[in-house]
Amino acid sequence: MSQAPVLIAGQWRTAKSSAIFQAENPATAEKLAGEFPVSSWPDCEAALDAAVEAAAVLRTIPPEQIAKFLTRFAERIEARKADLVDVAHAETALPKAPRLGEVELPRTTNQLRQAAAAAIDGSWAMPVIDAKVNIRSMLAPLGPVLIFGPNNFPFAYNGVAGGDFAAAIAAGNPVIAKAHPCHPGTTKLLAEEAFAAVGETGLPPATVQMIYHVEPADGLRMVADPRLGAVGFTGSRTAGLKLKAAADAVGKPIYLELSSLNPVVILPGALVERNEKIVEEFTGSCLMANGQFCTSPGLTILFAGANTEKFIAGVKAKLEGATPTTLLSRGVANNLSASVKILQAAGAEAVTGGSELGGNRFANTLLRVSGDAFLASPEKLQTEAFGNASLTVVVRDVKQALEVLTHLEGNLTGSIYSDTRGSDDAVYEKISPLLRERVGRLLNDKMPTGVAVSPAMNHGGPFPATGHPGFTAVGIPAAMRRFAMLQCFDNVRPHRLPAALRDKN
Amino acid sequence: MSQAPVLIAGQWRTAKSSAIFQAENPATAEKLAGEFPVSSWPDCEAALDAAVEAAAVLRTIPPEQIAKFLTRFAERIEARKADLVDVAHAETALPKAPRLGEVELPRTTNQLRQAAAAAIDGSWAMPVIDAKVNIRSMLAPLGPVLIFGPNNFPFAYNGVAGGDFAAAIAAGNPVIAKAHPCHPGTTKLLAEEAFAAVGETGLPPATVQMIYHVEPADGLRMVADPRLGAVGFTGSRTAGLKLKAAADAVGKPIYLELSSLNPVVILPGALVERNEKIVEEFTGSCLMANGQFCTSPGLTILFAGANTEKFIAGVKAKLEGATPTTLLSRGVANNLSASVKILQAAGAEAVTGGSELGGNRFANTLLRVSGDAFLASPEKLQTEAFGNASLTVVVRDVKQALEVLTHLEGNLTGSIYSDTRGSDDAVYEKISPLLRERVGRLLNDKMPTGVAVSPAMNHGGPFPATGHPGFTAVGIPAAMRRFAMLQCFDNVRPHRLPAALRDKN
Repeated sequence: MSQAPVLIAGQWRTAKSSAIFQAENPATAEKLAGEFPVSSWPDCEAALDAAVEAAAVLRTIPPEQIAKFLTRFAERIEARKADLVDVAHAETALPKAPRLGEVELPRTTNQLRQAAAAAIDGSWAMPVIDAKVNIRSMLAPLGPVLIFGPNNFPFAYNGVAGGDFAAAIAAGNPVIAKAHPCHPGTTKLLAEEAFAAVGETGLPPATVQMIYHVEPADGLRMVADPRLGAVGFTGSRTAGLKLKAAADAVGKPIYLELSSLNPVVILPGALVERNEKIVEEFTGSCLMANGQFCTSPGLTILFAGANTEKFIAGVKAKLEGATPTTLLSRGVANNLSASVKILQAAGAEAVTGGSELGGNRFANTLLRVSGDAFLASPEKLQTEAFGNASLTVVVRDVKQALEVLTHLEGNLTGSIYSDTRGSDDAVYEKISPLLRERVGRLLNDKMPTGVAVSPAMNHGGPFPATGHPGFTAVGIPAAMRRFAMLQCFDNVRPHRLPAALRDKN
Repeated sequence: MSQAPVLIAGQWRTAKSSAIFQAENPATAEKLAGEFPVSSWPDCEAALDAAVEAAAVLRTIPPEQIAKFLTRFAERIEARKADLVDVAHAETALPKAPRLGEVELPRTTNQLRQAAAAAIDGSWAMPVIDAKVNIRSMLAPLGPVLIFGPNNFPFAYNGVAGGDFAAAIAAGNPVIAKAHPCHPGTTKLLAEEAFAAVGETGLPPATVQMIYHVEPADGLRMVADPRLGAVGFTGSRTAGLKLKAAADAVGKPIYLELSSLNPVVILPGALVERNEKIVEEFTGSCLMANGQFCTSPGLTILFAGANTEKFIAGVKAKLEGATPTTLLSRGVANNLSASVKILQAAGAEAVTGGSELGGNRFANTLLRVSGDAFLASPEKLQTEAFGNASLTVVVRDVKQALEVLTHLEGNLTGSIYSDTRGSDDAVYEKISPLLRERVGRLLNDKMPTGVAVSPAMNHGGPFPATGHPGFTAVGIPAAMRRFAMLQCFDNVRPHRLPAALRDKN
């Protein structure tokens, strides 16, 4: 079996590797065909050098040509849909339909096309012309972007095709993608299509580069390398914080999407008014993608009482009636099991589930803890259990709910359910300011899963959900602004100005 | 002599201090009247608590009221001009006129008024409404901002009145200002006027708080405190990087303005065409404020030849004909002397000056080094010599100029002088891309000093000039966006939305 080639400096070539690995079919626990290299430093070095050259050329290329590439890449992904869905299904156990083929793949090509349109439109760069003093400024590409994609979206967040990729390229930067080692085959196919589209549209060959894996030390070294302009990372908090420290030490912009519990607060009146409907929505959201979304509701605050008991019983019944599906990988299964144990050790009790089922499956799990117990151990009880497990915190009263909220870390989202007749309004007014400042997206009467690709979206939030509360990873054009520097032109002669800053604008 | 009070939680009160200090008149080296406390942790803690309360109230206050405060504060500064100029002059040795009274004070009130207008206008927050999916987002205040002002602008960058202050308040955040210990008396006067304006306009009393000094460990502790939303710092690289590390470790946004050499490249044709004019401009820029601007030209790249020798001789004569004035403080004088020694030890030779003159004055200094010598020690030869000293690098040819440029760190500005008849154009094309990506503001035929308060300004740049290349410290409204988080509202009921996100918009 020959080693899969890496894409470096415009060539598919044998990696300079320190080791090889194989992907695993999470449903069967069998190794999948195909050996993939763990690139050693010379591969990283070669990619960085080539990216610097590509960056210089890209700065001179009109946005229309970059847009053509993004569009052509989207078309090629669509043309290769069957292969992509097959390989991604084998590597992740995510359903071929509707998930991979009908939802995630169209989302991916939609993002690429939105990015293409934004590149042409140009307003993402926020040009400002002060003709009186002859000073002009706009956002501009900031150099090669290294993107680490996560395990849970093999297409839509893939380092070589996903949201960060689309944003970085549309802003005019070359990308070095590091595949997620759980789906190297999917990433290889996407990189093949990206590279073919690069060739078809005449971009510099190293506009898109891809390696499958690196040793952790080389990852940290790359992130701190002066040749790199910025980093995008979606993944675990542990890995992300190490990369952040390495980038911060050298002042390199790094955009992280780390963990999130996505707290949901369900006020008493809402449970009086529509208990069963909320049970339905909550369970659906918890089990969507088997709980493996960044926005899965991991922590719910409920007010002690009969309606809450009814709600919990309702959720329990639903969860027990649904068949757990295979998790994304052995690693996800192991982490989920370990996290649930941490939550239990900190005082959470299993209402249902709490145990592994074998075959990388985990029983649909609902945990509960009192407000008192939560406040005794707020840090441990915010351990993210990524997968089909969720914790409810049953508080005594509004005062305790507010106290729980003040202990919440930064999150991507926060939801509040209230009744429609006004009985919850006074409590809403107290709760919402505390939740608002701790989350990037505040929802009403809606579960957090489902991240629309809208220009108004914020898929971001305060640390440790991300590394900076001012940026979003989803939503064109805002997501593009992460991969840009502010460039000012002071008294620069007219013919030397970027087109967008000339007087006719 | 009684200790000056600190402004905490809406009261001027005695500090809980660990030590006292006095300001020094840099011109006479005498201690100035007035004892100022070094606040200990309980003061910091009290300020943080009060700021959190003020932040919650400020979120509910209409921007018009915040704008009224900014405007009223500007008026009060103008009414107290005589006192402010007297005290600032005594503490900094900067000339009363035109500098303090006619330039810096009007700049300060102009910034406050521009911030007021931007707060009312509201477009700084970039509201986006996607009515189809009922998702809306905008930038919003992110909580108390701690501002460390620098030594070199007692008004315009003061933590309690300067650009960061105006931006943070206009974005809706309370400010905790740490005075620069070189001008505590000036800062006290400004804080008095700010606090009076807070009272007159009905903002929460702790909207503005001020302490004079803290122990370094308490500064680091404050920066990392969860009650704080963000930090603004303008000052030395050493102090700034320590604060950055503390903030980064807890994911706290910190905006830094650190050192900058502001490279100037003078192409051969420009020296043929207008040697004397450029000598004049360069010398004027170097000596402006005695070289104590963040944008003072500290490193000039010249091409070996007779015209460059003529230029250097011209600058030498001008510098020797100008009388050095008193530096901002004993610390600035000592650092300047030490930095010039480092440059000399690394191979730079003094064309003129290079020595202390006593009384916190330093001889106007021009150093020179060959391109070869620069490339042998590029890091040491980028030591910032803050004050009236500047280094010229005389390169052999274009190739060497490009090599020197690739070794430059991130800077606030970069200037290129070229002739107007086209003989420099080919070289310009090679040099400008390299310089462009290393600086926040690129200038043509213009020295970097003089930072217009324009919406198109970028007073920022790649690390280590600042901590993030996407933000500017000067320029309303862009500077306000630093002190904000992105808030998205998904399906939030209409009456609960911020005014700017309602359907009528």
